[in-house]
Amino acid sequence: MPETHSRRRAALRALLQEAELEALLVTDLLNIRYLTGFTGSNAALLVHTGGEEHTVFCTDGRYTTQSATEVPDLERILDRASAQALAARAGADAGRYRLSGFESQHVSVDQFDALKTEFGDVELRRAPGLVENLRLIKDEQEIDALRQACAAADRALADLIEHGGLRPGRTELEVARDLENRMLEHGSTGRSFDSIVATGAHSAIPHHRPTSAVLAAGDLVKMDFGATADGYHSDMTRMVVLGKPAAWQQEIYDLVQRAQAAGCEAVLPGVDVADVDKAAREVIVAAGHGPDFAHGLGHGVGLEVHEAPSLAATGVGTLSAGMAVTVEPGVYLAGRGGVRIEDTLVVRDGFPELLTLSTKELVVV
Amino acid sequence: MPETHSRRRAALRALLQEAELEALLVTDLLNIRYLTGFTGSNAALLVHTGGEEHTVFCTDGRYTTQSATEVPDLERILDRASAQALAARAGADAGRYRLSGFESQHVSVDQFDALKTEFGDVELRRAPGLVENLRLIKDEQEIDALRQACAAADRALADLIEHGGLRPGRTELEVARDLENRMLEHGSTGRSFDSIVATGAHSAIPHHRPTSAVLAAGDLVKMDFGATADGYHSDMTRMVVLGKPAAWQQEIYDLVQRAQAAGCEAVLPGVDVADVDKAAREVIVAAGHGPDFAHGLGHGVGLEVHEAPSLAATGVGTLSAGMAVTVEPGVYLAGRGGVRIEDTLVVRDGFPELLTLSTKELVVV
Repeated sequence: MPETHSRRRAALRALLQEAELEALLVTDLLNIRYLTGFTGSNAALLVHTGGEEHTVFCTDGRYTTQSATEVPDLERILDRASAQALAARAGADAGRYRLSGFESQHVSVDQFDALKTEFGDVELRRAPGLVENLRLIKDEQEIDALRQACAAADRALADLIEHGGLRPGRTELEVARDLENRMLEHGSTGRSFDSIVATGAHSAIPHHRPTSAVLAAGDLVKMDFGATADGYHSDMTRMVVLGKPAAWQQEIYDLVQRAQAAGCEAVLPGVDVADVDKAAREVIVAAGHGPDFAHGLGHGVGLEVHEAPSLAATGVGTLSAGMAVTVEPGVYLAGRGGVRIEDTLVVRDGFPELLTLSTKELVVV
Repeated sequence: MPETHSRRRAALRALLQEAELEALLVTDLLNIRYLTGFTGSNAALLVHTGGEEHTVFCTDGRYTTQSATEVPDLERILDRASAQALAARAGADAGRYRLSGFESQHVSVDQFDALKTEFGDVELRRAPGLVENLRLIKDEQEIDALRQACAAADRALADLIEHGGLRPGRTELEVARDLENRMLEHGSTGRSFDSIVATGAHSAIPHHRPTSAVLAAGDLVKMDFGATADGYHSDMTRMVVLGKPAAWQQEIYDLVQRAQAAGCEAVLPGVDVADVDKAAREVIVAAGHGPDFAHGLGHGVGLEVHEAPSLAATGVGTLSAGMAVTVEPGVYLAGRGGVRIEDTLVVRDGFPELLTLSTKELVVV
């Protein structure tokens, strides 16, 4: 959609003008994808406040055809050292570029030296996070992609359960692979991150990696996984129990479920991110399990599976309509088992829109 | 293997002493994995020339258990801002640290500011590429991991062919997924990179991404894929043809096969990397197909699928025993089809050791 990318670049130009910059050298590949649609592994983009006709895209010869299709609407140059090539372009045209920003949160100290040389008489100024600020608020095209990714994960989980994929004797690794294949069958272009499948006592490890441990009757099984669609990530955690849950399992499940619901309800425009964390956390603290919930409540999700905002006690800022976030409280009892329930949601005026639709009742298989 | 990591840190200390540095703050996660065995997503390491007892590792609370298992042999501290925490540690102990290096090719301009503040009176000096220099020469443990990864890819391809996985009517995406699942069945822990499966005219696109295009009788099919083992990557490209090859297909296949053999033969200690590229390239140029081979001959492979050295006309340096590289010439005829043949090899005294063992005859299915 060239119009989408052109609109995003126009929004960036407004930020550049506010920051009194004439241009921005964009070197982060996800930011470039956001601004141009390019999906290759080497590129740079020089956005000029003067407009589209002064904005230049660079990639290398491997992407001649691909970039012609993906970036039909900008001047393109081909050079393996893409950022340096655009810096040299600006340096050679110092009349137009007197003061350019660069992404100081991404550019390395060594790369900065190389860029400075090429920019020559053009002054370079740190301009971190400008494109990331735009990416905070998702447009409807982005939300559609997130919705597709979440749907692929929902369907994969439903299939897995329906086809008896969760049963004593299977290993965590087999379940993870099964889940990932089913996401691909449902249109996912990849996985958001290495899937977590944790059975029995392993469920008490927040970031457990699947092993050849075998699912056993009575186990709580935690699955934290995600699909991708058009570069956007889904993120969801669901629990099943193999057979009738023990009282302690049902108890922490119900607790986490209440905390998660409280967290989701707090996801509204204008709410402080720390207060969203607090809404869920105080449910767990009140039940005496505060120390068993040792991570933040959630994070933004989009072109990266973890991006701003951070929904944590230490988080800063407020939610706005169009942000996409996860809400994922957990209670982990070392050596016994743990529960986490996680959704991906979009902040909307008046109500949070839930994108992960799998049931949040404890599934008994 | 704590001994392995301890040996690598000792080798790094020797490099630090040569560079007249007292310490190095290592922030690149692959370099940290190489030096400690840690596989998590947040860590920093402060290596001090004074020895192991002055070397400190930092990760965050999510990795308490994992880091205790993976890094049992170093002092560990837990802090989410791992690099800053170690910088502060050095700053507070300015008697021991007067001059520390940092990985200036990885540390961003913004992160450098934060580190400088924490280091306080300790002078910070750019020290790019020290660990990468060590990683150039693989030890036998690393070569074993590469061998395992290559074997998983070899077996996956053999299975795919044996089970009729390459036949008219299947899509590129189906073949890619099939290949990747078979690599997992053969012990791969993941895939090295997004597999390339390119049929018919698509085979002429060097970095084609699999689509729903259907394999058809008479097509050349290019498969470029790799497995991982213990963090190490394999990389291999093989071709099949669906039915009797046309004369032009056989002709460019034979040409690329001869070029690839010439390239492999040149992989010996002391040979200039540009001369390895040249050995293969001049076969293709002599046949009048020089312009149809528009990329470098190969690259190093290890903890990254693309790492130093670069076997290209513009490459600098010579091969040494223990380096692991790919040799992958290609001839691409736009709109018709292309051929690439790629192996992963280890540079050995006297002969290159081939790790990818699948046949290099044109496979007819």
